[in-house]
Amino acid sequence: MSKPSVPRGTRDFSPLIMSRRKYILSAIENVYTRFGFMPLETPAMENLSTLTGKYGDEGDQLVFRILNSGDFLKDVPAAQQNDARSLAPYICEKGLRYDLTVPLARYVVMNQNDISFPFKRYQMQPVWRADRPQKGRYREFWQCDADVLGTDSLLCEADFIRIYHAVFETIGLTDYEIRINHRKILEAVAAKAGVPQLFKTITVIIDKADKIGVDGVAKELAALGLSAEQVQIILSLLDKTAFDHDALSRLSAKLGESEHAAKALADLRQLLLFCDSTEHVFLDGSLARGLDYYTGCIFEVVPTAVKMGSISGGGRYDDLTGVFGLKGVSGIGISFGIDRLYDVLEELQAFPSSNAVFTDILFCPMDERAISYCIPIAGELRTHGIRAEIYPQSSKLKKQLDYANAKHIAWAAIIGENEMQDNKVMLKNLADGSQQLIDKQDIERFMSVRA
Amino acid sequence: MSKPSVPRGTRDFSPLIMSRRKYILSAIENVYTRFGFMPLETPAMENLSTLTGKYGDEGDQLVFRILNSGDFLKDVPAAQQNDARSLAPYICEKGLRYDLTVPLARYVVMNQNDISFPFKRYQMQPVWRADRPQKGRYREFWQCDADVLGTDSLLCEADFIRIYHAVFETIGLTDYEIRINHRKILEAVAAKAGVPQLFKTITVIIDKADKIGVDGVAKELAALGLSAEQVQIILSLLDKTAFDHDALSRLSAKLGESEHAAKALADLRQLLLFCDSTEHVFLDGSLARGLDYYTGCIFEVVPTAVKMGSISGGGRYDDLTGVFGLKGVSGIGISFGIDRLYDVLEELQAFPSSNAVFTDILFCPMDERAISYCIPIAGELRTHGIRAEIYPQSSKLKKQLDYANAKHIAWAAIIGENEMQDNKVMLKNLADGSQQLIDKQDIERFMSVRA
Repeated sequence: MSKPSVPRGTRDFSPLIMSRRKYILSAIENVYTRFGFMPLETPAMENLSTLTGKYGDEGDQLVFRILNSGDFLKDVPAAQQNDARSLAPYICEKGLRYDLTVPLARYVVMNQNDISFPFKRYQMQPVWRADRPQKGRYREFWQCDADVLGTDSLLCEADFIRIYHAVFETIGLTDYEIRINHRKILEAVAAKAGVPQLFKTITVIIDKADKIGVDGVAKELAALGLSAEQVQIILSLLDKTAFDHDALSRLSAKLGESEHAAKALADLRQLLLFCDSTEHVFLDGSLARGLDYYTGCIFEVVPTAVKMGSISGGGRYDDLTGVFGLKGVSGIGISFGIDRLYDVLEELQAFPSSNAVFTDILFCPMDERAISYCIPIAGELRTHGIRAEIYPQSSKLKKQLDYANAKHIAWAAIIGENEMQDNKVMLKNLADGSQQLIDKQDIERFMSVRA
Repeated sequence: MSKPSVPRGTRDFSPLIMSRRKYILSAIENVYTRFGFMPLETPAMENLSTLTGKYGDEGDQLVFRILNSGDFLKDVPAAQQNDARSLAPYICEKGLRYDLTVPLARYVVMNQNDISFPFKRYQMQPVWRADRPQKGRYREFWQCDADVLGTDSLLCEADFIRIYHAVFETIGLTDYEIRINHRKILEAVAAKAGVPQLFKTITVIIDKADKIGVDGVAKELAALGLSAEQVQIILSLLDKTAFDHDALSRLSAKLGESEHAAKALADLRQLLLFCDSTEHVFLDGSLARGLDYYTGCIFEVVPTAVKMGSISGGGRYDDLTGVFGLKGVSGIGISFGIDRLYDVLEELQAFPSSNAVFTDILFCPMDERAISYCIPIAGELRTHGIRAEIYPQSSKLKKQLDYANAKHIAWAAIIGENEMQDNKVMLKNLADGSQQLIDKQDIERFMSVRA
């Protein structure tokens, strides 16, 4: 028999990893819910008609396809049978969720009559991409999204900044930047450089700034046929500054007058007004967010004490649901990348040690009768929320304590003949080895302040 | 454009449904963790070599297969291209998780050197089966398992009964039966009827008792060639009684002496000793649990106030990990079917109404300036765990209150010119329509006792 394994790019999450992931997820969920976001979950499988055409050609290739059940070849024309590309649409109707945004758009369109807008939902589920696995890039990974649909109020943008502050404060992440920009600034820049028709191309190039550097951007812009002066106009707008009134005034002066510039600046001024704190927030002219559907403010969060890509991103879109037939719904959303956030906290050693503890007290029976003696005591502790285990056999004490130590359990309650006779338990502190004999009815009080 | 939809047999979970599902899941998770169970998650995809051959021929057909990426036809011999059955293994290497038990066995074998046994894990994830969808049967559904591996102590069986009690008490389910039996009783019955070699066949027939009735069982047994007397021996053991010492004595007398009977009775006596309560527990001779891998005590939980199949099942197995090369690890596990449990609580109208509430207070700004006025007040509430939303536009009050009512929000804080001038908020009780003006710094105290 060959050794079992998991598919490439996928992972088991051991209890310790799960505990740490739950620590992150519940911090985010907790903050989302305090802002009135509601949970939503969608199926792992979507019809391929829902998924394809939404993520570009490259994205379409990365969707995992599910083979139709039964005799999947029966309706395939013979001419299509020998070529993978032409065969695939005949033998697969469904694919695995590629992100949480397209399923949201589909859900909103399907349920538009039952939804009260503005619709605030969060969604924390895995997504799957047939990407080449590498360090930090998985074929199954988790997204943790919140979106507001049905309002263009800048209060939403400001709330997402507050959400970032609250989440990172909860998990003890102190060194990070919330970088913001506005897609219409990018449009204004292209217009100012005299090439409004190249807006999308320029955006894609600027988007690579953190990988290829400013020189790289300049080179690629020049390769488009832009003059040195045009390139200079674009580069002059790529700097990063604190997000305040001065920055907006300087930006306004640089951009000059245009419809796009006016809209972007009005939005950013309103956003600034709605922020009670701009700590960690930077206006970053080089932030572009590749995806086409953003139309307003865009966000990206980067940890600064650890070398790592962005841990969250998002932005405003004007027409997410249009592709499914519902036009004119403005919305905004952000997404946390849980896997990266995990790696950041791990590198910073910022996970609380309590994440490694799953049991507060282990009862160690020295003989079979002692098991029965432990049962009601452990039961009483559990009703008070204390996590109590009874070692299920009267093995040697050393073996039982080895188990406790391996599981980072802090307390052992050793029960032998004498303890049972006197209605006691021998409580052992596994950190320092000290022991004390206490009445069995006192153990709940003792543990309540220690668990 | 055609209307978007979800694949057959899959579902979106709206906020209300999610909230109720979370209510059930967190009740179960909470109980599991109090018994020292640790979380585990495994990938949605498994290698087909892990999945196939574990669920019988029928099960193998129900596994969803994932099409290989890229040119999936390139290594297919021409002779295999025209037949779905022979083509499938060439074009699919991975399948979707079919249950949580096989992934557990795989995980334990892969990590056996790092695991401290007894290993207690819980796992709450969706599974996928290409079954024909029908009422109550989905292609994507949730399992919620707990298992203990590496001990044959009957304390585990007793703990699972305690877990059932605690979970159902938490979610307010009062009418249910925990039916138990022992696979070795079924072996002893077959032996007593003189046909030990037919044990598995007889088990499969008995397993259908709740569908085909005792008469149906008798007919099928007779069809096997059993005499009326043999059939009678088997039927005489199919009754259901309270789980107590008398029942075990009667059972012992009926079964007579055999190795299987002795083992089953010793186990059940020990289990009874380890139970602090046998409320809701019945010894059910007709309980068989179809799956082959069970070898000891088996469980099934059935709601009695609602017509519905079992909402949980499980049992002891002696060799779950053997198929992956690790022999001799005894274990026991149970699984809750979340989807059915949901249906039961819905039919009983047992979900708390708080499940439908996602926001405690809605701030209603009467003009744009009022939005800014609300921001710090709402922020203060959120830091105290109160779920506070600000309506993001200064729409007409009626529109804002309609939104609040649609979302079952109990309180509205209306902010107009006067409130801002006097540092007040106008609090409106949306249940009875009453209003009161209070100082803005008092709102946290007011809401803390009401949210």
